Amino acid sequence: MKTNEIPERLAALRHFMEAKKLDAFIIPTTDAHLSEYPPKHWESRKWISGFTGSAGTAVVTKEKAGVWTDSRYFLQAADELKDTGFELFKMGQPGTPDMTDWIIEQTGQSATVGIDGMVYAASDAIALKNRLNAKGISLDSSFDPFTEIRADRPEIPKNRIFILPDDITGESVTSKIGRINARLKKLDADGLIIATLDTIAWTFNLRGNDVEYNPVAVAYAYVSENETVLFIDQVKLTGEVAGFYKERGIKIDDYHKIFEYVSRLPENSSVCVTGNKINYNLLLTIPASCKIVDVPSPVDLMKSVKNETELKGFRNAMVKDGVALVKFYMWLEKAVPTGEVAETDIEKKLREYRSRQDLFVGESFGTIAGYGTNGAIIHYHASPETCLKLQPEGLLLIDSGAQYKDGTTDITRTIALGEVSKQMKEDYTNVLKGHIALATAIFPEGTRGSQLDILARKTLWNNGLTYWHGTGHGIGHFLNVHEGPQNIRLEENPTPLQPGMVTSNEPGVYRANQYGIRIENMIVTREYNKTEEFGTFYNFETITLCPIDTRPIAVELLTAEEIKWINNYHKMVYDKLNNHLDKDEKIWLKDKTKPI
Amino acid sequence: MKTNEIPERLAALRHFMEAKKLDAFIIPTTDAHLSEYPPKHWESRKWISGFTGSAGTAVVTKEKAGVWTDSRYFLQAADELKDTGFELFKMGQPGTPDMTDWIIEQTGQSATVGIDGMVYAASDAIALKNRLNAKGISLDSSFDPFTEIRADRPEIPKNRIFILPDDITGESVTSKIGRINARLKKLDADGLIIATLDTIAWTFNLRGNDVEYNPVAVAYAYVSENETVLFIDQVKLTGEVAGFYKERGIKIDDYHKIFEYVSRLPENSSVCVTGNKINYNLLLTIPASCKIVDVPSPVDLMKSVKNETELKGFRNAMVKDGVALVKFYMWLEKAVPTGEVAETDIEKKLREYRSRQDLFVGESFGTIAGYGTNGAIIHYHASPETCLKLQPEGLLLIDSGAQYKDGTTDITRTIALGEVSKQMKEDYTNVLKGHIALATAIFPEGTRGSQLDILARKTLWNNGLTYWHGTGHGIGHFLNVHEGPQNIRLEENPTPLQPGMVTSNEPGVYRANQYGIRIENMIVTREYNKTEEFGTFYNFETITLCPIDTRPIAVELLTAEEIKWINNYHKMVYDKLNNHLDKDEKIWLKDKTKPI
Repeated sequence: MKTNEIPERLAALRHFMEAKKLDAFIIPTTDAHLSEYPPKHWESRKWISGFTGSAGTAVVTKEKAGVWTDSRYFLQAADELKDTGFELFKMGQPGTPDMTDWIIEQTGQSATVGIDGMVYAASDAIALKNRLNAKGISLDSSFDPFTEIRADRPEIPKNRIFILPDDITGESVTSKIGRINARLKKLDADGLIIATLDTIAWTFNLRGNDVEYNPVAVAYAYVSENETVLFIDQVKLTGEVAGFYKERGIKIDDYHKIFEYVSRLPENSSVCVTGNKINYNLLLTIPASCKIVDVPSPVDLMKSVKNETELKGFRNAMVKDGVALVKFYMWLEKAVPTGEVAETDIEKKLREYRSRQDLFVGESFGTIAGYGTNGAIIHYHASPETCLKLQPEGLLLIDSGAQYKDGTTDITRTIALGEVSKQMKEDYTNVLKGHIALATAIFPEGTRGSQLDILARKTLWNNGLTYWHGTGHGIGHFLNVHEGPQNIRLEENPTPLQPGMVTSNEPGVYRANQYGIRIENMIVTREYNKTEEFGTFYNFETITLCPIDTRPIAVELLTAEEIKWINNYHKMVYDKLNNHLDKDEKIWLKDKTKPI
Repeated sequence: MKTNEIPERLAALRHFMEAKKLDAFIIPTTDAHLSEYPPKHWESRKWISGFTGSAGTAVVTKEKAGVWTDSRYFLQAADELKDTGFELFKMGQPGTPDMTDWIIEQTGQSATVGIDGMVYAASDAIALKNRLNAKGISLDSSFDPFTEIRADRPEIPKNRIFILPDDITGESVTSKIGRINARLKKLDADGLIIATLDTIAWTFNLRGNDVEYNPVAVAYAYVSENETVLFIDQVKLTGEVAGFYKERGIKIDDYHKIFEYVSRLPENSSVCVTGNKINYNLLLTIPASCKIVDVPSPVDLMKSVKNETELKGFRNAMVKDGVALVKFYMWLEKAVPTGEVAETDIEKKLREYRSRQDLFVGESFGTIAGYGTNGAIIHYHASPETCLKLQPEGLLLIDSGAQYKDGTTDITRTIALGEVSKQMKEDYTNVLKGHIALATAIFPEGTRGSQLDILARKTLWNNGLTYWHGTGHGIGHFLNVHEGPQNIRLEENPTPLQPGMVTSNEPGVYRANQYGIRIENMIVTREYNKTEEFGTFYNFETITLCPIDTRPIAVELLTAEEIKWINNYHKMVYDKLNNHLDKDEKIWLKDKTKPI
């Protein structure tokens, strides 16, 4: 992207704002479906500001423009926003104004702030409106300036969807809809509006190709005892797929028809929505006589608890991913000494090895391959400008994952390319100790991720270190690599961890301008033991299969229990992968998994 | 209390309900000030039901009556409610109906439920009203049946208050009111209504004697830039105290005048309240034109962060308490072999030794002294019926505390009276490991108690054990032994721990019909270290001074670090107490604090 386009775009938006009498316009990252990764049609924040990070909000006033983003993107945003006319606001830093406060200050009483209610979470829009109104400022949510000012705006994608068979999903569409309706009954709701794409994909056992990395399709849905409707561009359905839904009594209607449908919901009926998972316009479409039951998505909770078939698929995907990773790391080990391997080659090679595996569909997110100082940039993505060539020294951090039809993977390893310093070893070992502490946690039913988070951080905290990202996120089954409702973070999340939930375990440490370390496996919550007096306890099964580099370990910092965990983990990795490897690979893996 | 009085009282309440056309009446534990320990005037729930525990809610319908209480009181409540006509509802147990759901089920559409809005937290009353109204049930909050039906109802106490001098509080009333007004300005509030007694005591540097264990006085207050008013029965003020407030420009008005005052607040002014710390009637008194700023009490947060003078007072109180405890435990050790010491004697003796200490005012709560099986009852209070005589075997749990004018104490020790089993030793050691893990925690600025709670539980969880109470509560400075806003619990609490906060550290384990173990010290949050890259870290200073019994420790289960902590702690206890002890006491303490 040429940055000199940004001032032109900014001028076009200000022109639009002037015509509509708007004093400010807010452009969030998300789309009509509150996606983390929106289809390009909705990448308006990237387009207007030039900032390409996955999280951030742009605000444009008559005189000023700013982008608010979090610590993961401070360096990247500073770089990308240079000379664009957009100022960077570093969220969570002392002195950074809150975005709404800043807008209030800039625009003043009796101003009008614009948003596109189609791409704004209803709960956020309502909170924004309340705060602005309290200061005498109006919010107008009826504008989509980018239809007008963005000449080359991509279409909403129209890719074909496909049905994931029951022997992969482990549950039929009919059964899922039955469970949703049972839940709606308990919530005293007559129907449910679903706007998030992964929730729709899970409910209807469909997968698509409309979004990078996420195998979802752009659609809306309404589920009720009376009828279930999937709102989707019909060009996306083959006759076979259309027939599949027809047989099951599921109606298909055009994508945009959801608005008309919702506006005609029966008077006084009760509609279940999730305020932060429905766009503001759609919420406003619900007839005033209806009762809105705004609760955390009951379907997302169902989706997060994987059934045995899904877990079997995950475990199988892990074997395939593990095999690909063995091949990749063997290649890397040979290639590094040539001095010709760049960070950008890693992504290519990983994709190549993974793509040879059965049921491979694509990557589950953009590979992060950060060598040396680039490893300290938490959400780094190598580009020609930043790309370093690997040298036989220091640490290389690689975070990558794949979509296989039977499961999604997400793994980070940090490896020594040669000599590593004492500090690197200590940091690496402290991250590993946190990883092991979480992996071996035993906890009662009802425990939330925020209670466990400290296990991964405690040793780092003892050493005056921490990391500014979550410890674990939920992972979809051949779906989004980030999914809720559970997670393992510093921040409170009321969802308890439940058997069948698949979550990442990824502590790290990042020293700016030095290096970054992260060790990530996927873990499944499962029942551990049960007594009448003290109740049910859970623990985790680690399912990722790939050696953890033992060379940067300061063994003297590990307890006997931690050493045992490492050795047992490596024995499992070898046992589960070796039948799928050739002779040289077996020898390599045997060495990488030998006891410490 | 003779239980046969309860059916009569129940009949009187039902008679009252019939006259007022009420289908149900709810009687909570609290008073007009949302106190944990209400003055006897407001002990209506105890009076109507006969259940004497500190937490529980009674509900009476035309046909049925029930008491909802938590696990601490299941055994006691079952015992006390026998043959009273009240059914016990065990909160948190599977199958126990939610109280409101039960009321809805019992009363049905178009019923009227009564409460006394004077003794109901506004936030609870509003939530209750919303749930009842959704089912077509009305809530009437205008009744106080106990004025009518309780002939012997105690008066609201009228005890004299006294001023705590600045050399004990460390901050003048004027300074505190200045800080409150500065905070109100930031909240865009014109004034603050304070209804909780400890908040008033802190703000006005007053202490009283209206409530058992809590040195507070019944009062309300209003603080604003324009004027500050203390609403209190004027008979409680000596001329000197009245003069003290007059000099500082603080107005005094009669206790009940708060209602008239609040009803006349200036039109359109903005009033700060805390929804769960103001009674419903008082909230309803605020003129409709006023804007209500409902936030967690800004004063309670100020109160929780102790200044250096308060901390010095706490440390001094700990020395005095430690000396009293040395004398007590020496006495106990000699007395147990006689077989004549009963649980009830412990409370008496502790009070006796403490009362000889400088600035002693009273106990900070009712002593819990549970021997053997009684130790498993978490909030046990020995009574003639339950009281056991101590034998030279097994475990004795003693949780007690004092109010000194320079600080409040709260300490639990569990001691071996003779032989202890292998399981007792393992349990004791696992509790101790949790205690040490929390005591030695290092954590970044912003950390909440719910994040640290697991440290105290992890070893127990690893062994399939847990405890059904919080790990730590805030402690007032010569004020309530339980105070917010911070705590250390499984449950989320958004308040981060801040330097100067004083909290308890009290993991335990309870085996029903066997024994109970708890080890409790008080800990102060303080700054630990700070780096530019990773921010500020805090840790705890343990301030309680009393040996932890080393006889029940299974030393082989402790790490070298844990043994070091115990030995260092014991060295500190000896060093800080020995100058205040006679020769025999020194010898005793030297032995009890010798390294393991």
